[in-house]
Amino acid sequence: MAVRRLLGLAGAGGRRGCCAKRPLPADFVEALRAVAGAPHVSTAAAVREQHGRDESVHSCAPPDAVVWPRDVAQVQELAALCYRCDVPMVPFGTGTGLEGGVTAVQGGVCFDLSRMDRISELRVEDFTVAVEPGVTRKALNSYLRASGLWFPVDPGADASLCGMAATGASGTNAVRYGTMRPNVVNLRVVLPDGRLLHTAGPGRHFRYRRGWSRPGGPGPWVQGGGRPHPAPVARGRKSAAGYDLTSLFVGSEGTLGFLTRATLRLHPVPEAVVAAVSAFPSVRAAVDCTVSVLQAAVPVARIEFLDEVMVGACSRYSGVELPAAPTLFLELHGSQHSLAEQVRQTEELARLHGGSDFAWAQEAEERNRLWAARHNAWYAALALRPGCKGYSTDVCVPISRLPDIVVETKRDLEESGLTGPLVGHVGDGNFHCILIFDPEDPDETRRVKDFTDRLGRRALALDGTCTGEHGVGLGKRALLREEVGEEALATMRHIKAALDPKNLMNPGKVL
Amino acid sequence: MAVRRLLGLAGAGGRRGCCAKRPLPADFVEALRAVAGAPHVSTAAAVREQHGRDESVHSCAPPDAVVWPRDVAQVQELAALCYRCDVPMVPFGTGTGLEGGVTAVQGGVCFDLSRMDRISELRVEDFTVAVEPGVTRKALNSYLRASGLWFPVDPGADASLCGMAATGASGTNAVRYGTMRPNVVNLRVVLPDGRLLHTAGPGRHFRYRRGWSRPGGPGPWVQGGGRPHPAPVARGRKSAAGYDLTSLFVGSEGTLGFLTRATLRLHPVPEAVVAAVSAFPSVRAAVDCTVSVLQAAVPVARIEFLDEVMVGACSRYSGVELPAAPTLFLELHGSQHSLAEQVRQTEELARLHGGSDFAWAQEAEERNRLWAARHNAWYAALALRPGCKGYSTDVCVPISRLPDIVVETKRDLEESGLTGPLVGHVGDGNFHCILIFDPEDPDETRRVKDFTDRLGRRALALDGTCTGEHGVGLGKRALLREEVGEEALATMRHIKAALDPKNLMNPGKVL
Repeated sequence: MAVRRLLGLAGAGGRRGCCAKRPLPADFVEALRAVAGAPHVSTAAAVREQHGRDESVHSCAPPDAVVWPRDVAQVQELAALCYRCDVPMVPFGTGTGLEGGVTAVQGGVCFDLSRMDRISELRVEDFTVAVEPGVTRKALNSYLRASGLWFPVDPGADASLCGMAATGASGTNAVRYGTMRPNVVNLRVVLPDGRLLHTAGPGRHFRYRRGWSRPGGPGPWVQGGGRPHPAPVARGRKSAAGYDLTSLFVGSEGTLGFLTRATLRLHPVPEAVVAAVSAFPSVRAAVDCTVSVLQAAVPVARIEFLDEVMVGACSRYSGVELPAAPTLFLELHGSQHSLAEQVRQTEELARLHGGSDFAWAQEAEERNRLWAARHNAWYAALALRPGCKGYSTDVCVPISRLPDIVVETKRDLEESGLTGPLVGHVGDGNFHCILIFDPEDPDETRRVKDFTDRLGRRALALDGTCTGEHGVGLGKRALLREEVGEEALATMRHIKAALDPKNLMNPGKVL
Repeated sequence: MAVRRLLGLAGAGGRRGCCAKRPLPADFVEALRAVAGAPHVSTAAAVREQHGRDESVHSCAPPDAVVWPRDVAQVQELAALCYRCDVPMVPFGTGTGLEGGVTAVQGGVCFDLSRMDRISELRVEDFTVAVEPGVTRKALNSYLRASGLWFPVDPGADASLCGMAATGASGTNAVRYGTMRPNVVNLRVVLPDGRLLHTAGPGRHFRYRRGWSRPGGPGPWVQGGGRPHPAPVARGRKSAAGYDLTSLFVGSEGTLGFLTRATLRLHPVPEAVVAAVSAFPSVRAAVDCTVSVLQAAVPVARIEFLDEVMVGACSRYSGVELPAAPTLFLELHGSQHSLAEQVRQTEELARLHGGSDFAWAQEAEERNRLWAARHNAWYAALALRPGCKGYSTDVCVPISRLPDIVVETKRDLEESGLTGPLVGHVGDGNFHCILIFDPEDPDETRRVKDFTDRLGRRALALDGTCTGEHGVGLGKRALLREEVGEEALATMRHIKAALDPKNLMNPGKVL
């Protein structure tokens, strides 16, 4: 009978306070099981612990229960159930976030969406595909292998694509292909009360595309058909039809609804790819070289900066042999013809800034080895001080301000006596400082906190943002207020209250 | 005393019904004058009539009063006054809209923002500038002349840039430079109750840019520095800090607040420009050629289609001599070197599709004459049947669907016995049919209505949108519902209610 009531077959429960954590209503877990099936619901401590944290230093806050819906109808039914009973809901993809986005600070139910893993509606002509939350970026790119298309947004971790949409992720390829924002075409969202929303309307999946050809009819698409080609234009679907709901849900960090399917914009696999590494005499020289490369219109696909501490850590961790100097990792995409030009230009500019000769890697295996070293930067940094924790900052400034902020941040690190290798998507003005510290040492922990606050404010003072790609989550709510101002925050709160009037969707995050 | 009360120095007025039009409260106009100064308020019938319509066929619905604020503080004070007294507010820029967006369907006060015309914060290094609503796109480009930068979004009319942001406008250059959406960096908004909001935070003005250089130090910026260059990447400011309020207000058509300043993304003036015209044996051949040009990665800046009726009308109206055949107008931007390559590719593709040899215009005067003919299409169409009215439809489909929808629409026009020259930004999949009809003829008016509904639904059936750039306004509310679905519309309504709880901002539009 109680289960029936909870399932909405009888009257609804009372309202829940905004901030209080209280136990689930009686028989609520039974009601979850009735919807999802008993094997797809767990209240085991280990499972809850595992779902109460991401890869950041934020403390674990386990949910009261974890449920694994298998289709969108179940998400809707489960959400409606939680809504009626005033139980908080937290969406969970791969748990690879860096700002505590999945911590269940008010308890409630974690929706682990990893078993919804369908890839559908691949439309090669329209360069789009739809993915459910269980699909990671690597799984999608495996699926696409034969199509000649790929999805380039790459935050390092093999994250859920819907999770990447939820945080507004980006990563190493954003300098050329854009962040998640322009690469999401449509979102199927389950609203907090269980209703289903398509942000661009049901079935709408186009963005207008350009700049690609399929030489000689069927077969893989390539960029530019062998000629110098424009960079893909990362832009929204052209439409003036009502409010832009897609942009509102991208970056909403699970606070407005569940992203249960994302229609993504795909890109043609480049005809040729080369990667390269060059060492520089100073941090400023490496960053100045980046600015020059961008201003000279070299359409780099990736341009990543690692300071000497980071390079040393990566060399040791990944077994690549690199001099411990400020270093740029680059990748160029294009036709064979255009790559030769890009390589020439890049080498010329690197030489001007005192960079070493580039070591070019053209074979996939060699390139993968290089990028694995870059992608393992986080673990390489952690290995600098075994037993310590890592915290990755994430600021972004106009590219012209980048040399100054990087140099100043290095000095601040030194003065603060902290271990913090620098690594960043410098082509976007975006960089991270991976602080490695002993959480048992209150003095060091305080210095880390003070340092990260100073770094955030330094970025804001340079017209930058306190988060380029990790999101606000738990950790950056105070900085968000400083960045956007009181009225913008109030407006975001009004939107949140309008779409989630009971404050049940991932409560305590962002706002 | 009454004025004091209205100014908020005494208790507020009662609530206003959502749909009723009722007279202004007693002494309200006096209160407006007390804020704005008597010369800046008018209730003259002719002035109200002039502000109650745009360039569309929607009937005039005059506001009860027109006020010309001179700065943002006055907009705030006037909005707060209207809000307290439950008086509807309608923002007005240049009145060049095409979907009845400025009609005061519930009466109230028209805020004519044309006297706020400051251009500020030009930051050449960061490619941004801030404009108030009185600044039109031509005025901005005059201002920018010496900087080497320009603002490319060009809907034809010399519209207010803030008005263009409000409708999500685009136009002829969008195929290369994007629509308003990716070109707006930040918006200063006066909310309905008078509070001030900066959508990306106060003072934040950057988007990360790339692909430009300033050869030899100071002097104008050029694209690509003489080398083949990537198209500018039109994308949002990289930030994961909270909800994307900028994207929410772009395209909100004055229903959420007053856009009192827009920070815009500028682009470098291209080193060289050529324009050209080519005639084709059939509509399908011209549209197919467009698709080929885009797929071959020619980075066209403009590619516009005119059918034979439109070309004939433009020839007569503007005194240019063009054969009355389906025609493409093109413009290419780039370095001298890259233009030669673009011209060669374009000519080759046009020839493949049976196009005539291109007539290339390199001198500014010659180009301007050509584009004036294109930009006067609306007036040229009206001149086809003097005394009649025009209605410009506006649909957009994935580029692969374009040939079919254009051919089908031509057939429908013929079968419906309507005069409707076709013209469009075909590079975006976006086109217009300018229907010229006698509004006194009820049968013809009905056929126009039926035809436009069919066209909108034809676009929706092809995964397109019912409006690529004109907005929803009054005319497309029913189609919006069909496009986005009931839940998306409900979500938009919740957002509207959250930000404008009294439904006073441009009521009756969009939703």
